[in-house]
Amino acid sequence: MIDIRKIVALVALPLGFLLTPAHANQSFPPGVVVRIAELEIDPTQLEAYKAAVKDEMTDAVRLEPGVIAIYAVADKDNPSRLRFFEIYASEEAYRSHIDSPHFKKYVAATKPMIRSRNLIETVPIQLSAKELSR
Amino acid sequence: MIDIRKIVALVALPLGFLLTPAHANQSFPPGVVVRIAELEIDPTQLEAYKAAVKDEMTDAVRLEPGVIAIYAVADKDNPSRLRFFEIYASEEAYRSHIDSPHFKKYVAATKPMIRSRNLIETVPIQLSAKELSR
Repeated sequence: MIDIRKIVALVALPLGFLLTPAHANQSFPPGVVVRIAELEIDPTQLEAYKAAVKDEMTDAVRLEPGVIAIYAVADKDNPSRLRFFEIYASEEAYRSHIDSPHFKKYVAATKPMIRSRNLIETVPIQLSAKELSR
Repeated sequence: MIDIRKIVALVALPLGFLLTPAHANQSFPPGVVVRIAELEIDPTQLEAYKAAVKDEMTDAVRLEPGVIAIYAVADKDNPSRLRFFEIYASEEAYRSHIDSPHFKKYVAATKPMIRSRNLIETVPIQLSAKELSR
């Protein structure tokens, strides 16, 4: 007996795979620089710190051609422990960033709020990101 | 005496500021989930591990609607210490990812290559990224 459900399943399985929407991967410039920072913030000044760093991140990505991304997250079990993942177009772009007025303003404003800072230099293995709609 | 260079400088400075190209910030969906992983790889299997994880990352971003980005970097002073910064559209997108065929294949293939693994759940503070050209 021919089982029509089996035939449908056999045809639909590879067809479904082919119809799965695929997404383009972003292309990052060669020579991209990724830096990680781990910061411990004074809990009593956490909100002030977050306000200052958010402003600085927005300005950096908006104004500096070589700042591709700055991501800031807190550990779920310790809101005062922040981690930054930063993508720059080049070493020059990073140096230009730390020399920018908004970065210097941020450093001056937040210095008394930061208890410890661990800066990690990295070698990118692969940066896979989806193109988002504008 | 009128110093023409001073006048040029006074006009050019704010003009230059106004002409600085500004870049749009990517918008991330609300409820976005960021996870960090820190892995120590067996140095003798590092190249095999990197090949496997690169394939998995490419597939995840290309095939899964909810995988926004997976970034992999190595510590500059320790190539076997890898750090992953992963952005998912939602908690469901993350669960769907770890249930995907490419992720399960990666886990099976790389299990003997991984010496230690530290998974960090986070609360996003701010994700600032430039829109890149398609």
